[in-house]
Amino acid sequence: MEAKNKLVVVGSVAVDWVITPSAEREHSVGGAAVYFAMAAAWACPVQLVGVIGGDFPATALADLEAAGVDLQGLERSDGLTFRWKGRYHENMNSRDTLETHLNVFERFSPKLPESYRGAGFLFLANIQPSLQMAVLDQMSTRPTLVGLDTMNLWIDIANDDLVAILARVDVLTINEEEALQLTGETNLVRAATKIRGMGPTTLVIKRGEYGALCFGPDGALFAAPALPLESVVDPTGAGDCFAGGFMAHLAATGDLSVANVRKAVIWGSTMASYCVEGFSYDALRGLSREDIEARYQRFVDLTRF
Amino acid sequence: MEAKNKLVVVGSVAVDWVITPSAEREHSVGGAAVYFAMAAAWACPVQLVGVIGGDFPATALADLEAAGVDLQGLERSDGLTFRWKGRYHENMNSRDTLETHLNVFERFSPKLPESYRGAGFLFLANIQPSLQMAVLDQMSTRPTLVGLDTMNLWIDIANDDLVAILARVDVLTINEEEALQLTGETNLVRAATKIRGMGPTTLVIKRGEYGALCFGPDGALFAAPALPLESVVDPTGAGDCFAGGFMAHLAATGDLSVANVRKAVIWGSTMASYCVEGFSYDALRGLSREDIEARYQRFVDLTRF
Repeated sequence: MEAKNKLVVVGSVAVDWVITPSAEREHSVGGAAVYFAMAAAWACPVQLVGVIGGDFPATALADLEAAGVDLQGLERSDGLTFRWKGRYHENMNSRDTLETHLNVFERFSPKLPESYRGAGFLFLANIQPSLQMAVLDQMSTRPTLVGLDTMNLWIDIANDDLVAILARVDVLTINEEEALQLTGETNLVRAATKIRGMGPTTLVIKRGEYGALCFGPDGALFAAPALPLESVVDPTGAGDCFAGGFMAHLAATGDLSVANVRKAVIWGSTMASYCVEGFSYDALRGLSREDIEARYQRFVDLTRF
Repeated sequence: MEAKNKLVVVGSVAVDWVITPSAEREHSVGGAAVYFAMAAAWACPVQLVGVIGGDFPATALADLEAAGVDLQGLERSDGLTFRWKGRYHENMNSRDTLETHLNVFERFSPKLPESYRGAGFLFLANIQPSLQMAVLDQMSTRPTLVGLDTMNLWIDIANDDLVAILARVDVLTINEEEALQLTGETNLVRAATKIRGMGPTTLVIKRGEYGALCFGPDGALFAAPALPLESVVDPTGAGDCFAGGFMAHLAATGDLSVANVRKAVIWGSTMASYCVEGFSYDALRGLSREDIEARYQRFVDLTRF
């Protein structure tokens, strides 16, 4: 595969402690970059940038490698891996963060391997905006498409850095509440107009079990549902898997047309629908291309009229 | 138009006091049957059953008549019209009921005009289940399609009556939270399975600004978005307008196929999108068929991939 189809992702790599109303996993491998990579690697070459501590499970490294993820840019550092602990509410739509420990991410300074620098696609998954900027700055040529995700924490404590990096990206994927928070709006359409004025020409608003709204490169709106599921085990990482499926489709096809961006939203929704069916990336492991294509077809059936 | 395409609706007829974060209307004509009728009458003949007091504005009667709604079944009673007062929260997605006065609905006993009794389509809009039952019982032949809407109040205080009428309807339109409340489930897919076991073969779950989910007559799922709007003036009646657009399309076409039920969901969504753009039925008044068809097309554009 040529460099133009390669997809670099930087973001958190984590060991989570996830508590849901019906179950709990104390050492759940996660982090935005891990979820993203597991959701993307079936479709295009993925190169991961991040940092882990000595406690990161070797089995997870093996899973990423088995999925085809390039780990040359994953730094092994002394100390503990980033940790997040959270508890989901009864309806699984909202959660409380109980603990966050940056650990090895506190002193992390990403260094992109030479083989990553020419990639055509770059996704700056959720992590400090300054780290996102550092990765973008190390690309040898400006990628064809740069995407970014962020969270309420960075809107609060690193707003200037976030605004600076936003001006340099093509696609923003962001939660509904965060889009309102970022812009100080109460209406999503007005928030989207403001955000598109800050840099990204394509904006994907993630709405959890309600799906996603995409303001495409032409400004026109596309609405995609989430797949209604009878059993949601763990919503952690669904947004990152969405981004992984979305970016991977664009990288694999190299087609940035409005029509293909819409398809990418559905591929993202497809990968997110798997994510929530298990803890960690359990439900993404071992999927065949046929499995994934059949699930994409369920979105076709769900929306056609 | 033949009786088989006629659509009878029974439900509340109200004078509301609506407070939103940015505006307020003290005498806002509303009620489920009024919203339903205003959203349906452009597409098929609508016959309304309800009761008003001496305070009901003559202008609203004129509006209903101008829209073509048959008011022979609208009883004029001594006393005050049903009144509801509510306040919407900042995001317009939720509201508090401040006051409810049944007034003339307390002693209402619906008597269907002879010309209503052979209608092919019947919608039992939100009102006491016992009144819904009384109307259904007065139909001379079982209508081709019977739809029903309800609310949390009746789930709480008239559950037996509600369960009895549910067993006799084909379509239930219900809010997401109310679907969970009715079934004691926390998952919507499981709630839908339970509800479809209670009677309705078609179930439409209304999700406000997130659109609607329809479990069709074949059990297959259809997801429709709401139209993202830059300005929402007053969400009151949106669900009733949805039901009006939905039922009217089925009555006008007489086609109950799975494919046409999906189109009906989009027609419902189309009418709901108008409803929220003004207080009362302001934004529904004076629409041309061309206006409405153009807005339907916006749903096509919003969802195609």
